[in-house]
Amino acid sequence: MLMLSPQEIGDKILPILIRKGFSEHAARTIADVFIENNLEGVDSHGLARFPDFISSIDAGRIQITDGPEQVASFGAWEQWDGLCGAGPLNAQAAMNRAMEIARESALGCVALRRTNHWMRGGTYGKQAADAGMVGICWTNTIPNMIPWGGNTPTLGNNPIILAAPFDDAPVVMDMAMTQFSYGKLEQHRIHRTQLPVAGGWDADGELTRDPKDILDTGKLLPAGYWKGTGLAFVLDLLASLLASGNATSDIAKLNGEQQISQVFLAFDVARSGNGEEISARIREAIDWMKGDEPESIRYPGQRAAETRLERLVHGIPIPEETWKALG
Amino acid sequence: MLMLSPQEIGDKILPILIRKGFSEHAARTIADVFIENNLEGVDSHGLARFPDFISSIDAGRIQITDGPEQVASFGAWEQWDGLCGAGPLNAQAAMNRAMEIARESALGCVALRRTNHWMRGGTYGKQAADAGMVGICWTNTIPNMIPWGGNTPTLGNNPIILAAPFDDAPVVMDMAMTQFSYGKLEQHRIHRTQLPVAGGWDADGELTRDPKDILDTGKLLPAGYWKGTGLAFVLDLLASLLASGNATSDIAKLNGEQQISQVFLAFDVARSGNGEEISARIREAIDWMKGDEPESIRYPGQRAAETRLERLVHGIPIPEETWKALG
Repeated sequence: MLMLSPQEIGDKILPILIRKGFSEHAARTIADVFIENNLEGVDSHGLARFPDFISSIDAGRIQITDGPEQVASFGAWEQWDGLCGAGPLNAQAAMNRAMEIARESALGCVALRRTNHWMRGGTYGKQAADAGMVGICWTNTIPNMIPWGGNTPTLGNNPIILAAPFDDAPVVMDMAMTQFSYGKLEQHRIHRTQLPVAGGWDADGELTRDPKDILDTGKLLPAGYWKGTGLAFVLDLLASLLASGNATSDIAKLNGEQQISQVFLAFDVARSGNGEEISARIREAIDWMKGDEPESIRYPGQRAAETRLERLVHGIPIPEETWKALG
Repeated sequence: MLMLSPQEIGDKILPILIRKGFSEHAARTIADVFIENNLEGVDSHGLARFPDFISSIDAGRIQITDGPEQVASFGAWEQWDGLCGAGPLNAQAAMNRAMEIARESALGCVALRRTNHWMRGGTYGKQAADAGMVGICWTNTIPNMIPWGGNTPTLGNNPIILAAPFDDAPVVMDMAMTQFSYGKLEQHRIHRTQLPVAGGWDADGELTRDPKDILDTGKLLPAGYWKGTGLAFVLDLLASLLASGNATSDIAKLNGEQQISQVFLAFDVARSGNGEEISARIREAIDWMKGDEPESIRYPGQRAAETRLERLVHGIPIPEETWKALG
């Protein structure tokens, strides 16, 4: 395991992005998203995904652009076209624009079509929270989840993110609609551990805690069974309607995941109180939730912030094969 | 079991509301919400709850008002004060105002403080959808759910609703954060049936499918375990921040559930296409999700619409004791 600094990782991947044709600004933005994801401990959506990102460029699913373009402004809600560009570049620009609208109108929404995988959605919620705003965003995906009562993966796992500024570290709730991510199942498979609760179906159609059986069938369980099913369906529908973009049913007809739809909402929450007042409110809610179990319960975003501090000091652990795969 | 028409129920409860001091308009609005909930098959939040609603008035938790008052306009996001009035009256007015803002700005938000239980949140999502808008709303509640990893009910079950217009019947996703509602557990207990999946903890702290054991401990499981936990926490936080109102931690200190906070968002989705285009998009997504199992999978809102049609023809089944309890 290598222990690398953000600088070292940037020095490696920035030139690769520049060589692919990205502008310095675009390359920096994309590189920072990958690095931040590793820094915050979301290794499944950090450097480990970078080779796949490059392959998607080579395959033409990701185009070299300098960001999305506005296609419609209805008022506080705008539609932007991602031009099939890099997901992190488009998503960051979309949340920035939603925040610009919110600075004028208190509330802003950018719905983005024809974009690509944003890597980790929490990045864009945190982006809003770091700027003192409440951020909400969600994305659709290729079909990768079985609706409760069904047998075919017709739904995406459509992550949704809700974030708020907080002076300790921002509150960032980032949840996909499957009970476990592929990355988490893979970890349990490697360590030969059972999942704490059922995470999908085995070959006999039974719910199971065995990660290998689930990875074999590819049948991941929606979180909350019918609840994750319904929420995934409606999030996809709203992303498609608000962006006038592809729904999961359209994405399924393309060659691999591409041209997806996303929604970014920002509230200029400072209108209702200064940062200290907002943080006091949040601290009270956190303390109340933790109650007598302050150690066993973390607030959403707390662990990522702890990991970030630790990795800034001790470095980011990167498996040697991941590093080599960068070329 | 009595089979009653909406008219017969209205004739019974309207005079009761008028006698309590509500204006004719307020009484009609409140009565219609109770009746509609029964019509759509959500009997747990229809007439069965009416005596409790009246008791809350008598106990002073619900004040007699004619609706909420605007306290701040930041632009597309406004704050309103529910004046401790009736939840259905305040919620309907708040969604109406969010839609008014959306007619101007394409997107509108009303955050409501000091309101009361809205009965069934789906009512207000459907209200937006029936007007051709996308509606999103959520509420906080008294603490009634155990955070995953904890042992004390510190979180609310904070239902969220997402709705879209559709020419068959609106898409209305209405989900509380517990895997099962109290009403559903009660049904299974009465019929002595096990839950299809674990729904809470028994006295030994084990997850169980036995409805009686769960009702005895009152320890209901968050849907998706840690996912429902995190989502409930953040929805409460955002409701409190956006409304400058009570969080669940504040509500816990009051005498019974009162003075809660809610958020209403409306998108004037007609800006992005006419009703036919929107319905065509939704129909495609529904057909795709149903795939080869059109009978076993329903879209969110479909069952309520089917029940509504059936009950408009055959009447609304009301247990005699529920009817007698109205006095």
